[in-house]
Amino acid sequence: MIPPLAFVTRLDVEEEQTWLEILRRAMPEERILPFRDLTGEERRLAEIAIVANPDPADVAALSGLSWIHSLWAGVERLVLELGVTAPPIVRLVDPELSRVMGEAVLAWTYYLQRDMPAYRVSQAEKRWAPRDYRHPSEITVGLLGMGALGSEAARRLMDAGFRVQGWSRSRKDLAEIVTLSGEDGLDTLLSTSDITVCLLPLTVETRGLLNFERLKRMPEGASLINFARGAIIVADDLIRVLESGHLDHAVLDVFEREPLEASSPFWTHPKVTVLPHISAPTTPSSAARIVAGNIAAWRRTGSLPQTVDRIRGY
Amino acid sequence: MIPPLAFVTRLDVEEEQTWLEILRRAMPEERILPFRDLTGEERRLAEIAIVANPDPADVAALSGLSWIHSLWAGVERLVLELGVTAPPIVRLVDPELSRVMGEAVLAWTYYLQRDMPAYRVSQAEKRWAPRDYRHPSEITVGLLGMGALGSEAARRLMDAGFRVQGWSRSRKDLAEIVTLSGEDGLDTLLSTSDITVCLLPLTVETRGLLNFERLKRMPEGASLINFARGAIIVADDLIRVLESGHLDHAVLDVFEREPLEASSPFWTHPKVTVLPHISAPTTPSSAARIVAGNIAAWRRTGSLPQTVDRIRGY
Repeated sequence: MIPPLAFVTRLDVEEEQTWLEILRRAMPEERILPFRDLTGEERRLAEIAIVANPDPADVAALSGLSWIHSLWAGVERLVLELGVTAPPIVRLVDPELSRVMGEAVLAWTYYLQRDMPAYRVSQAEKRWAPRDYRHPSEITVGLLGMGALGSEAARRLMDAGFRVQGWSRSRKDLAEIVTLSGEDGLDTLLSTSDITVCLLPLTVETRGLLNFERLKRMPEGASLINFARGAIIVADDLIRVLESGHLDHAVLDVFEREPLEASSPFWTHPKVTVLPHISAPTTPSSAARIVAGNIAAWRRTGSLPQTVDRIRGY
Repeated sequence: MIPPLAFVTRLDVEEEQTWLEILRRAMPEERILPFRDLTGEERRLAEIAIVANPDPADVAALSGLSWIHSLWAGVERLVLELGVTAPPIVRLVDPELSRVMGEAVLAWTYYLQRDMPAYRVSQAEKRWAPRDYRHPSEITVGLLGMGALGSEAARRLMDAGFRVQGWSRSRKDLAEIVTLSGEDGLDTLLSTSDITVCLLPLTVETRGLLNFERLKRMPEGASLINFARGAIIVADDLIRVLESGHLDHAVLDVFEREPLEASSPFWTHPKVTVLPHISAPTTPSSAARIVAGNIAAWRRTGSLPQTVDRIRGY
């Protein structure tokens, strides 16, 4: 009997079906079954699990797993829930995801550069209030995180004429971009960027990274975009810094709890744009192609793409 | 006595001073005087007037004018007010202006593609409502006007992955872009574009061009951006089409009367984004360089850049 691929998810049944269809189309040679359809024997035989927010107990029940492929790029919850003894995890690294994120960073950078939030306010007040145009070269965008997403965002922003600098955990040498690292580098980036864009993975080190102290280092009138994970920013501290008039605007796509609870002050804050986690959705067809390629390569050669470092968390 | 350059404007004194300084810096060899500072003799001697919304009587008082340089790209009002007997008019054709307009077209196309108006509404209602991501290649942007501004906008949109088609009065052959012309071409463009962007000059032919009939030809759920002149769209017809639910959104930067009067229904319409004529402001330093270059070339060779066709109106 050919061992099946297990698809393990807590998505609703409709989404599960959509994914199953797309995955099966991308890998017609594989037998892909949702966890609940596996027999006891198949649970022991399955070598690979494709997961999308899986119940950890289901993954643990697959006793013969060699590795796990996540359909998402962000795996902090998966790492936490599965624990250190789980099989190796491969996260989604999809050039299409980087493209969509680069597009989002550019789109919402334009949103801030071209004063769209300010014009929304003046429209509500029936006020005709043109503001001075700012050339992109007058605006420094600081990117927190210079992996696949950050590098692509940097390229898009530079093509559009913005000044770009990046910060990452470990020093990177990227042509044409000032890249900083370490505690001092973070201070420098925050204090010299007109727009700071957070694209960091959520790890033990980045949780709560943008606290009151660090947000206050941003220049008067600067703006913040968070397209990474809500918990990287201390929400109450951000509200305090916005209230003080120090920052101009925050575009928030991610929150510690999603959907964002109705009681959150972000919803009604005039200096906050709330987005429902849409900056860079996984594109199913493209993701399925990547997953299929990784699985086919493993079947052929036994080797895996880079797996998640459980200590680093990504 | 060296004949002075006359600067004729109805801008307020502060703006007039700013322009005078910038123009003088760009042409240190010229003597540039505001109209009111000219002596009677200087009014007869001045060969060139640089104008920015001038009083027509002032221009008429300059009896020895050889030509007029407008600081704006849009000259429909100037042509109308000065009449057909006025000296040749050179309008501003500034690559920087095209760049800023191309940027605006891309920025507000992203605004629509990435559903920013819809997310603004759901934020106001504290509703977490992600919408499906649309790839740029699924969105056709139709550009009305394929001169310097339209061509640059097309290039920026295509680089960003959007499908682009253009329409202009006379047939243009542009690499990689479907370009349409004529009445039929306009129908085709309107009925096959998800986002129509108006960049046309205001002329006898384009005044009221986008009326109820033509707006209804746009597909259900399409959007409109007007960065050209308010009078190209019949405002009441646009409101009707928006009210009927046929169109999704209109981004309006220009209006028949500016500032937009407080009684306009555009201010409060949920499907309208009102902007205070900021899509592509003239960049003084860049405009002054262009004007200085044209004036120096005329002094040297006696030849002018293309002048405004008073019948066509641009």
